[in-house]
Amino acid sequence: MGSLEVERTTTGWAARDPSGVLSPYTYTLRNTGPEDVFVKVICCGICHTDVHQVKNDLGMSNYPMVPGHEVIGEVVEVGSDVTKFKAGDCVGVGTIVGCCRSCRPCQADIEQYCNKKIWSYNDIYTDGKPTQGGFAGAMVVDHKFVVKIPEGMAPEQAAPLLCAGVTVYSPLTHFGLKQSGLRGGILGLGGVGHMGVKLAKAMGHHVTVISSSDRKREEAMDHLGADDYLVSSDATRMQEAADSLDYIIDTVPAFHPLEPYLSLLKLDGKLILMGVINTPLQFVSPMVMLGRKTITGSFIGSMKETEEMLEFCREKGLTSMIEVVKMDYINTAFERLEKNDVRYRFVVDVAGSKLDQ
Amino acid sequence: MGSLEVERTTTGWAARDPSGVLSPYTYTLRNTGPEDVFVKVICCGICHTDVHQVKNDLGMSNYPMVPGHEVIGEVVEVGSDVTKFKAGDCVGVGTIVGCCRSCRPCQADIEQYCNKKIWSYNDIYTDGKPTQGGFAGAMVVDHKFVVKIPEGMAPEQAAPLLCAGVTVYSPLTHFGLKQSGLRGGILGLGGVGHMGVKLAKAMGHHVTVISSSDRKREEAMDHLGADDYLVSSDATRMQEAADSLDYIIDTVPAFHPLEPYLSLLKLDGKLILMGVINTPLQFVSPMVMLGRKTITGSFIGSMKETEEMLEFCREKGLTSMIEVVKMDYINTAFERLEKNDVRYRFVVDVAGSKLDQ
Repeated sequence: MGSLEVERTTTGWAARDPSGVLSPYTYTLRNTGPEDVFVKVICCGICHTDVHQVKNDLGMSNYPMVPGHEVIGEVVEVGSDVTKFKAGDCVGVGTIVGCCRSCRPCQADIEQYCNKKIWSYNDIYTDGKPTQGGFAGAMVVDHKFVVKIPEGMAPEQAAPLLCAGVTVYSPLTHFGLKQSGLRGGILGLGGVGHMGVKLAKAMGHHVTVISSSDRKREEAMDHLGADDYLVSSDATRMQEAADSLDYIIDTVPAFHPLEPYLSLLKLDGKLILMGVINTPLQFVSPMVMLGRKTITGSFIGSMKETEEMLEFCREKGLTSMIEVVKMDYINTAFERLEKNDVRYRFVVDVAGSKLDQ
Repeated sequence: MGSLEVERTTTGWAARDPSGVLSPYTYTLRNTGPEDVFVKVICCGICHTDVHQVKNDLGMSNYPMVPGHEVIGEVVEVGSDVTKFKAGDCVGVGTIVGCCRSCRPCQADIEQYCNKKIWSYNDIYTDGKPTQGGFAGAMVVDHKFVVKIPEGMAPEQAAPLLCAGVTVYSPLTHFGLKQSGLRGGILGLGGVGHMGVKLAKAMGHHVTVISSSDRKREEAMDHLGADDYLVSSDATRMQEAADSLDYIIDTVPAFHPLEPYLSLLKLDGKLILMGVINTPLQFVSPMVMLGRKTITGSFIGSMKETEEMLEFCREKGLTSMIEVVKMDYINTAFERLEKNDVRYRFVVDVAGSKLDQ
């Protein structure tokens, strides 16, 4: 609108319809505003939510849609009011790129609970245009929603921390479960669960992985460093483990009974739900009351918690287990992720891929 | 066994079988041991649990059973090691008369969560004999489980505080909900609910009573001092009240959907269950996760909390709404309580009743 600047375009991989198949798509990026950061994408993790979104599983998808919300990039240009970042910085962008800044959650720096938050993709930005995610050459993002990646942390290692990492880190810190010596359970060993084991171990916890089968025992114990492994159908071991855990991070994204896991909790123990499940979950009230137990859940994490978590991971030398793929593998990666066929997170090497073919 | 003392007996009103009908029953009390307090009962509140217990609703009843666990009495005699009480003191005895003293809850002064706690009645004491409750002339109780009733508090006013009162006070303090200015909801207006309104108001909260019908509006607002009244079937008002409460004390003792009430909670709001319900309660996980809400519950309160609560009620001049009856009315009172036909707690004037007829 009267600007002399040439429109800037980028190419990403977009889904065009609920088939969810991604293919190259070129679109315009807004000019870098005073508070914006122009980021050249280096790599981007694939989250289960991406699969749901491209397939319209939540019924709210708009196309073309470029998914991706575990984005690591290099700063190319910053707006006139941006002082925290400079060209060349390695930065991250997560699930949110906007919020109202005035509601109670925004004022309390927990903008992930703002009712007017703007998602990194499949949302409408303040300029009325669709937001597009990180499976693309570049993004323009308000500096409030950009975090610095600590020196020495590899970009592909950092990517899964921006969603899976902070999703686990946020409730552990919020619910007072960060101190060492606690006994934690991780229910389900996918992208978030594997990060749960890693983070809980880095916090100095005794970590039990709880799974429906014995299949992941070796991985959990030998590769991820869990201290114990419980098969939920093994009634004897479940009984022995009753009343032993301070918390359980429940990452199972489908209906499951809660009572077997409530039983594992100590007095005042917390069952923290991470999976969006629209089938009602069930429990009987005495299971909660008689041990003053808590069923709760939380939702990603704030920018502040993301920064804290990245620093925590740097300090502890925490790494995630990933499989790095090129962009032209993304449709296969989505298919494999749907079958849980990945140990434990795909990260797309965006900068190293040809995006327009 | 070799004692020279004469056996001491008392008369209470006992159920003899699951009909739950109470009638006079004379039994032996143990001699006052070094740590015991011999208490002449003044009055005793009737709790819903008493009705369940005499009718064997929980399947664990032993007969003859003298119920009653909101007991106010006068100290007649104390054991040689008892320094906290003296003859003539007005004291209270609640739901528990023994615990292991060595487990984690006992060590943390939350003996109500001790797995070896001994109930005031329908349990077996350390001497192998059945415990019998407060609808009786006297009780012998370990001094650890006796509390002083503050000066100036009427015995019949104090009785309901020992179970209903501390049942509400304990979670409000434990979950950090005691400070003034909070907005609370009380779901269900029975014995515990009415105490919830009173205590929450005394804490300086804005209190909304939530009920299934309009029937108790006047009582809640005019007599109990609630600030607002919500009928759960009024979709418009429920929608307007969404996201407005810091906590809800849920006293409903039967199956009910949780989602309408979870919706009323603010970010980080807490739904605190008080009702023992063996039909599974249900919720969908996003209702909890997206507002970091908590479903929890708690179970009566500790001796320490009981003392604190009594002092709090004295300070605030809090009174309960009761209907005082004589012992020979107890079967009628039980029947009326089953139909919720009491505003809000029956208290039996034990000392003023003839017990043996």
